Formats: sequence, structure tokens, C-alpha cells
Amino acid sequence: MEERVVYVPVETLRQFMYEVFVKCGVPEEDAEICADVLIASDIRGIPSHGINRLKMYYDRIKQGILSPITRFEIVRETPTTAVVDGHHGMGHVIGFRSMKLAMEKAKKYGVGTVAVRNSSHFGIAGYYALMAAEAGMIGMAFTNARPSVAPTFSVEPMFGTNPIAFACPTDEEFPFCFDAATSITQRGKIEVLARLGKPTPAGWVISRAGELATDTRAILTGIPNGEYALLPLGGAGEEMGGHKGYGLAVMIEILCAALQSGAFLKDLAGFDEQGNARPHQLGHFFMAIDIEHFVPLEDFRRTVGGILRALRAAEKAPGAERIYTAGEKAHLAIKRAYERGIPINEDLQRDIKTLQGELGLVNHEFPF
Amino acid sequence: MEERVVYVPVETLRQFMYEVFVKCGVPEEDAEICADVLIASDIRGIPSHGINRLKMYYDRIKQGILSPITRFEIVRETPTTAVVDGHHGMGHVIGFRSMKLAMEKAKKYGVGTVAVRNSSHFGIAGYYALMAAEAGMIGMAFTNARPSVAPTFSVEPMFGTNPIAFACPTDEEFPFCFDAATSITQRGKIEVLARLGKPTPAGWVISRAGELATDTRAILTGIPNGEYALLPLGGAGEEMGGHKGYGLAVMIEILCAALQSGAFLKDLAGFDEQGNARPHQLGHFFMAIDIEHFVPLEDFRRTVGGILRALRAAEKAPGAERIYTAGEKAHLAIKRAYERGIPINEDLQRDIKTLQGELGLVNHEFPF
Repeated sequence: MEERVVYVPVETLRQFMYEVFVKCGVPEEDAEICADVLIASDIRGIPSHGINRLKMYYDRIKQGILSPITRFEIVRETPTTAVVDGHHGMGHVIGFRSMKLAMEKAKKYGVGTVAVRNSSHFGIAGYYALMAAEAGMIGMAFTNARPSVAPTFSVEPMFGTNPIAFACPTDEEFPFCFDAATSITQRGKIEVLARLGKPTPAGWVISRAGELATDTRAILTGIPNGEYALLPLGGAGEEMGGHKGYGLAVMIEILCAALQSGAFLKDLAGFDEQGNARPHQLGHFFMAIDIEHFVPLEDFRRTVGGILRALRAAEKAPGAERIYTAGEKAHLAIKRAYERGIPINEDLQRDIKTLQGELGLVNHEFPF
Repeated sequence: MEERVVYVPVETLRQFMYEVFVKCGVPEEDAEICADVLIASDIRGIPSHGINRLKMYYDRIKQGILSPITRFEIVRETPTTAVVDGHHGMGHVIGFRSMKLAMEKAKKYGVGTVAVRNSSHFGIAGYYALMAAEAGMIGMAFTNARPSVAPTFSVEPMFGTNPIAFACPTDEEFPFCFDAATSITQRGKIEVLARLGKPTPAGWVISRAGELATDTRAILTGIPNGEYALLPLGGAGEEMGGHKGYGLAVMIEILCAALQSGAFLKDLAGFDEQGNARPHQLGHFFMAIDIEHFVPLEDFRRTVGGILRALRAAEKAPGAERIYTAGEKAHLAIKRAYERGIPINEDLQRDIKTLQGELGLVNHEFPF
């Protein structure tokens, strides 16, 4: 099956997303943040977390489980730490302001850490880590998420794709940025397979019966009700290290929930016991480390650049074209995105038209 | 092939290791730390990093590439950060003192971080993370290591097994402790297969020709000279997330090398360009986070305990006996170790006899 994809200029999409958020009641300054986080995902070549999610945010605001106005409350603060309550506001705004807070602390005291409760889906974790990297610091961002991944030796979706993001400056023209779910894959990649009519690779997903599942359509409908679960990085069982991906995910669950005494695991599903929609109550953890507290920034940049260049120069596997370092593919994707635009598939075209119709946003010239 | 294994009481082994270190010129207080770190690995069921490595330390001290007397120099310090030069002393002592320093900082300021240069093999990273957990804090420990793992799309061993360790207190009788190499496996596990005469599972190791290698003996002799490389967590290529294990390892290389402007990747091999042995110049990164700066410790313990109990109660995969959480297997192993002793295989019996002979340590009653 072939996808009919059209390419839309980056700034057109950013402006559209901004207007959607404003129409939803998000204050203008906050809407700029939300649109910037989403477009950052699209331009970096991660379509699952960009405009693809716009309608999800819209639906949740309409449902009343996501507050367009973000009350960012610092409930506890020390020079290097803070606990923030997001009061079910926009995750992007909560994430942005929390990372800013962590960075201010790091600039002054060397390290800044912020634990967040009652937040919502904040887009790509890498965005927040990159904020620190752009300011000459190491940034780390973690979030928990609604349950979709099974522990090692289990078939039940218990925790989220719980990503870890780490970014830092280098002496090259783009930062090092590692941003990855601690599961082998995430829902967005399986949705792409569905649109292409392709099976899911055996090893990504386990069925409730304990079998490695490959039926893409069945998996997508079955994950939300627990018939299927994603597998942690390393896969099923322990032989290929599945317990390591599982352990990393639990570490992130602890950082994101226990440092703010918040909800965790199944309580992040977005439904109460009666099956009614409710806020997802996500937790995040942000950290900024000011490099100049350790070594001169230029030395750090040179060391990191040296590591990355040595890795890229390693001997290639037969048939491999090149060896990448984290952040490099995104750097290439950004160039491409500004040259040819962001690919918008048919599902997404429909979503955009729906939003245009429902919100009366008619002054956008989309080529579909 | 069957291994002839004898069991030796924990305290007998600890005392023997202590005496070996003292005979090697390690000061008594430091020798206690070294022996404690090694025995902690054995009792936790990680034989690869305990007494199994004792002769390696002995050999390196004899070679003159590891200094039995540890000069622990703090070269730069702020309230929340420090850079330490270990001057090629005992990694265990450097790690212990660095984590203590991070914990003191965390107690006062919320977070403490220590980057270390010119260190050496420090045993299990989990030991240092656990120091913080036992003091009611979150502990994290990272180290780089001599090159044995290939980047994604490469066949060349470029970086080490670069472990990440994370530990924290819970309301249960043992702490949460995640401690794992970012490669699928490490050399020690392949050595165990060699003793049992078993093949290496396909997927752990890649040959220079790009094939998944299973010949255990060939792998063990071939890793040091680059004929084989371990694969990062997630395996070869990107389909099962190998780029994630690779990215995590590079993140750790950066934390451990770039914050102290130190050696990295191939420069950690322990040989100079002429092939002469030289210090490994390892780097570490330690972090302690004081929980009470965020939430009451009792609340944190309860949240973490709640997460862990929910995970263990998840639906089991068909045929699975139980679901573990990180630190639980170690907890069970510790009980077993104190009941029946530490298993000492024939290779290790030989090593111990060699050390006894060469150091004149005759007053130990080993049952072999």
C-alpha cells in the first residue's frame, strides 16, 4: 500500500498548530511553546510526536481532561531542587518552564533538578534536554506514560514507553541528543506500519497469550485494552537483556513519580475505575548540569566531538553505509524539513481538515 | 562439561581478599574497601566482578599500571560538583570516596555530582549507587571501560560495556538496585559459557566480518584484539533498538570522560601505541540526590514500594514462575551466599592458590 503524502512548509504548520492551541483557549505565549515543541519533533524526523498528536491534545481539551490554561505551581523549592504541580495543564508548557527552572538552578549552583506531578503528554523528551544543550549545559528529561509495556516475564502492559533524553553541546554544528523510549519501539512506529499495510516485526510486541505478535492492526486496537503489550528494550525474557530495558523503565518511573509522591503505572491510563476519562497525571523529571562547574565548556565540547568523530570513523559492518551518532539523523532531517517541508499523510490531512472545520481556521493554504 | 565448584564462606573470602590487597601494598583502610566492593559482587550473584577479578588487580599492580596507594585528589570543587583525579589508584577506593563526596554534597545542597579521571576498574557500579540508597538517597554511578562493544552498523569494538547503576530506598527489606551494562552481555558471562563448554547465544557478539558469532572460545580470545565485538543492548542494527543501547553507552562515555576532560574509547585499552601496558585511565561519574529535598523519605519509600509490588503482581507470561524487580534477585542471592557460601570454580581455585603461593598467604583454610 502506498501513502499519499504531501509536504507542507515548516512555518505554515507551526503557525497552524499555534492557532489551533489559541482557539482551544491556550494563552498565546503558551501556544507558542506547544507549537514549537510539536514542530521540533516533526522537523527532527519523529512524526509520531509532532502535528500527528495535535488532534489528541484538542480532543483531550474538549473532553475536559487537559487544561488549556496551565497553572504552574512550585510546591517546594531548594537551591538545586524543585517539585512542581502542573494541575493537568499543557505538558509542553510545564516541561518548558520546569527545564528553565532546572537550568537557572544549574547556572547558579552547578546542578538543577525538577520533579513534576499532574502533568500531561509533553511531546518529545529531547526538546527539553536540548534546551539545556543550547545553553551550554547537559540536559536530561524523563517522563512516565500511560501503561503499554510489559515487565520481563509478564504479558500485561504495566508501564509506559518511559523515555530518557540526554543532550549536550559539542564542537560540531549540532548537539549530541539521545532521546529514546526504553521499550523497543512505540505506538507511533506501529501506526506507520499500519498505514503501509506492513506486519510488525516479531519481537516488538507480546500478546496476552505470551506470543510474539506481528498482526499490526490487531496490535493497535489491542494495546489500549491490554490484549497486547510492547516489549522493553532487549525484548522478551532475559537472554537478550530484556530485563535491562525493563529496569531502565522502572528507574524512570521512580524518578518521575516517587520524587513528587504522584500517580504511577496503571493510574496513568487516563481512565478512572468506571472507565471515565480523567487527566493522565503524568510525572516528569528534569535535570540540568552546568558544564563550566566541572571543566571549561570549550574543553567539554572538544572531548565530546572527539568521541563522536571516533565512533563515526569505526569500521563499518559489511553493507552498512555509515555510522551515526545520536542527534545526527535529526540534524540531517532538520535540513531536509526546511528544504522540502513536513510530510503530511492522509490520516493527518483528515485530522487537519477536521480541526480547520471545527475551529473555523480557514486562512491556511494546505495543498490538500 | 560439568564444573567442579566448592563453596567458601563469605567472611573467609572477604578476609583473604583483604590480605591479598594488603600484601600488594594497599593501605589497610583501602584494602577493606576493595575487599568489600568485591565481596558485594559475589554475594549479589555477580561472580564476574568479585573474587574472580582479584588476580587481575594483583597482576596490574605487579605490572605497575595500577597504584596500590591511592592518591585521591580533588582538582576542582563547588558546592554540588567536584572533579577528582585518581592518579591510577585503586578504582574501588576512588569510587567509594567519590560517592561519599557526592552524598555529602547532596545532603547539604540536594544534589551532589563527582566526575573522576585517571581511575581504574572499580568493580560493580551498583556498589556505589547502593551506598546512597542505604543513606536514604538516590544514587547513580557510571563508568566507561576498555573498548569491547561495537557501535550500531559497525563491527569494531569502540567503547566499553559502560554500565549504569541506579539505587534507591523502598519500604521493603531491600533497596531497588538497577545495575547493568549497556551491552547485551559482558565478558564475564561468556567466560561462564566457556567453562560450561556452551556456545554463545547468537545476537550477543558480532564478528569483524559482520556475522553473529557463537563460538565461545574464539570470541574470548578474539575480543581483546578486535576480531569480535559485543553488541549494544538491542542488538545488531536498529530493528530491535540496538541504536538505543549504543546511544546509552555514548551518553555514559560523555558523562564519564567529558566532564573531566579525560581519556575515552580506544585510549582506555590499557596499552600504548607500542603495545606496552599502561594505566587504563578510566573515568566515572557519580550522583547522589537527597530525597528529603523533594518529598518526605517515608512517602518516597512507599511510592517506590507500591510501584515494585504492582509490577510483581502483573500477569505472568505462560510458563513464567515470577516477575522480579531490580535488586530482588540480588537480595535472594545474598541470603543464599551467607547460607551456603560463595561458589568457587576450578579456574578460580587455581587463581587463589597462585595468589597464596606468590604472596605467602598460608593461613586460609580453603576446601581445595
